[in-house]
Amino acid sequence: MIVKNLRTFFGRGCCFQICVFVLIGLGILAGVALADPLPSWNEGQTKQAIIKFVQAVTDKSSPQYVPPEQRIATFDNDGTLWCEQPMYFQGFFAFDRVKALAPQHPEWKERQAFKAVLENDMKALAASGEKGVMEIGMTTHAGMSTGEFEKIVKDWLAMAKHPRFSRPFTDLVYKPMLELLAYLRENGFKTYIVSGGGVEFMRPWTERVYGIPPEQVVGSSGKLKLEIRDGKPVLTRLPEIDFIDDGPGKPVGIQKFIGRRPIAAFGNSDGDHQMLQWTTAGEGPRFMLLVHHTDAEREWAYDRQSPIGRLDKALDEAQRRGWTVVDMKKDWKKVFPF
Amino acid sequence: MIVKNLRTFFGRGCCFQICVFVLIGLGILAGVALADPLPSWNEGQTKQAIIKFVQAVTDKSSPQYVPPEQRIATFDNDGTLWCEQPMYFQGFFAFDRVKALAPQHPEWKERQAFKAVLENDMKALAASGEKGVMEIGMTTHAGMSTGEFEKIVKDWLAMAKHPRFSRPFTDLVYKPMLELLAYLRENGFKTYIVSGGGVEFMRPWTERVYGIPPEQVVGSSGKLKLEIRDGKPVLTRLPEIDFIDDGPGKPVGIQKFIGRRPIAAFGNSDGDHQMLQWTTAGEGPRFMLLVHHTDAEREWAYDRQSPIGRLDKALDEAQRRGWTVVDMKKDWKKVFPF
Repeated sequence: MIVKNLRTFFGRGCCFQICVFVLIGLGILAGVALADPLPSWNEGQTKQAIIKFVQAVTDKSSPQYVPPEQRIATFDNDGTLWCEQPMYFQGFFAFDRVKALAPQHPEWKERQAFKAVLENDMKALAASGEKGVMEIGMTTHAGMSTGEFEKIVKDWLAMAKHPRFSRPFTDLVYKPMLELLAYLRENGFKTYIVSGGGVEFMRPWTERVYGIPPEQVVGSSGKLKLEIRDGKPVLTRLPEIDFIDDGPGKPVGIQKFIGRRPIAAFGNSDGDHQMLQWTTAGEGPRFMLLVHHTDAEREWAYDRQSPIGRLDKALDEAQRRGWTVVDMKKDWKKVFPF
Repeated sequence: MIVKNLRTFFGRGCCFQICVFVLIGLGILAGVALADPLPSWNEGQTKQAIIKFVQAVTDKSSPQYVPPEQRIATFDNDGTLWCEQPMYFQGFFAFDRVKALAPQHPEWKERQAFKAVLENDMKALAASGEKGVMEIGMTTHAGMSTGEFEKIVKDWLAMAKHPRFSRPFTDLVYKPMLELLAYLRENGFKTYIVSGGGVEFMRPWTERVYGIPPEQVVGSSGKLKLEIRDGKPVLTRLPEIDFIDDGPGKPVGIQKFIGRRPIAAFGNSDGDHQMLQWTTAGEGPRFMLLVHHTDAEREWAYDRQSPIGRLDKALDEAQRRGWTVVDMKKDWKKVFPF
């Protein structure tokens, strides 16, 4: 009776239309299933290792199956998702801020670290020591509200260009890693950034660039203070370090901010070593990957001797324990989206 | 041609079946739309205010529409999602731990705070001052790994009973608030706990009890240290406070851990005051709610004079600014799920 009423209501043409939609739907599904999820990765062991892991943990009939809520994947940022040469991009940001603020601070001409930045003298900056670098960091990253800082970061990203590629810094993200992030998310993973970089330096753009929302970004941070300004509450950024999310800080950051151990972790330097060890030490299937910068032509080549992004002890352990190591030159068909 | 082939392929019966499925589907949808999402809430202003807000921010044609990714709702825990009388449940946990560990610590009989707990003498404990209470807290919450602590919490919850209701503490959650959490999530909200309680005391059970996963729990915390034990990395809980997520700490915690301002915030005491102010101060539609404990018979009645869960300044501001105040006795049809 229902069926008869339905036929009267929808008419026969409707049934055909539904069938057509079903066919199109099946076609789309088949297309998705057949499409290569990682087109910028060359065929080979690395790509196969990624796909094999994802298939195993998402296949309900597999002994390696992991329920979706436990599919946590953590990614380092500098050198893993975007470049970190010739220096961390947040360093360019800090130096540009010093230059922008200098007219209001004539006294900086007499202070070694600031003078070094204003004169682009990296040797003199290094000579100013940790104290000098810290002064630059605090001056450029503290003293304003969180809302003001977010605007400063966005404005800077809109105009700043990378010295080698003459492109916005957010263009210098790795296309294969963007595909990997999307592939993991399509397979029920929650993707996180766990970076030594400043959390509030990353959050304004990670959603747009990586599809990672602010609440899934873990990073280093300064202390915040709630204050009332013009009758409204604001959070002021204090010149005091709250948390360093690097090296042994990464497992701590993961526990503090996520509260679950990842089943997959992605890094590129010894600063990610403990994050990969922490991930490895959990129960059940695990996937650890290091991006090895081997491509001086398209990007950079550096590892054991590099002052930025040194990859030494973690590389040894990767070889010993069979973690996946990306040979950028060999494994990546394309490096950047442009 | 496709249509003709389809008919041959599926046969006509299939079309009827699809139509029947569509009908059933529409019926389910209609049922969902008509069902009361908040059955434990009495009809009235409070319930209407909640529904009106949710409808406005989810209606794409409304000027108050908010995209799903910005639908962040933060909930206090003690006194907002579960009871907090006759003392915070984490206090019962700490005291039970002291009693369980006492046989290994004969020296505690000579230390005022521990002696007070072992003799159930709350007056003597209060007399031991902040230092005494802190000693109890550190002894019971630090010195073990995060994994060990999680197990201790779960084991305690499985056997401990509330003194008035003689039920597991996790039974003493508010049914109307569980419905509210589910209703918000069905409408695309991401629900967070932002509590003064210990984050690692809450995370082991919030997913099971509230449907809130560990990574959406913000709370107070102690410092953690990465150590190697038997060749494996462990995170050891240090007897040192890292962050107090209460009062002015709540907006700080929201910024640190979520990085977005909530559009809806739910609390019950002056400890939630700044979280509600912070939420109010954002742009666009906002919803602030306080649970007022007015039901001595079914739960408890307390506010301006209560040492636990004092609700005084926030209540004044709620009345002044038109925040929603739940009158537990009047607004809640049922208090607990049992």
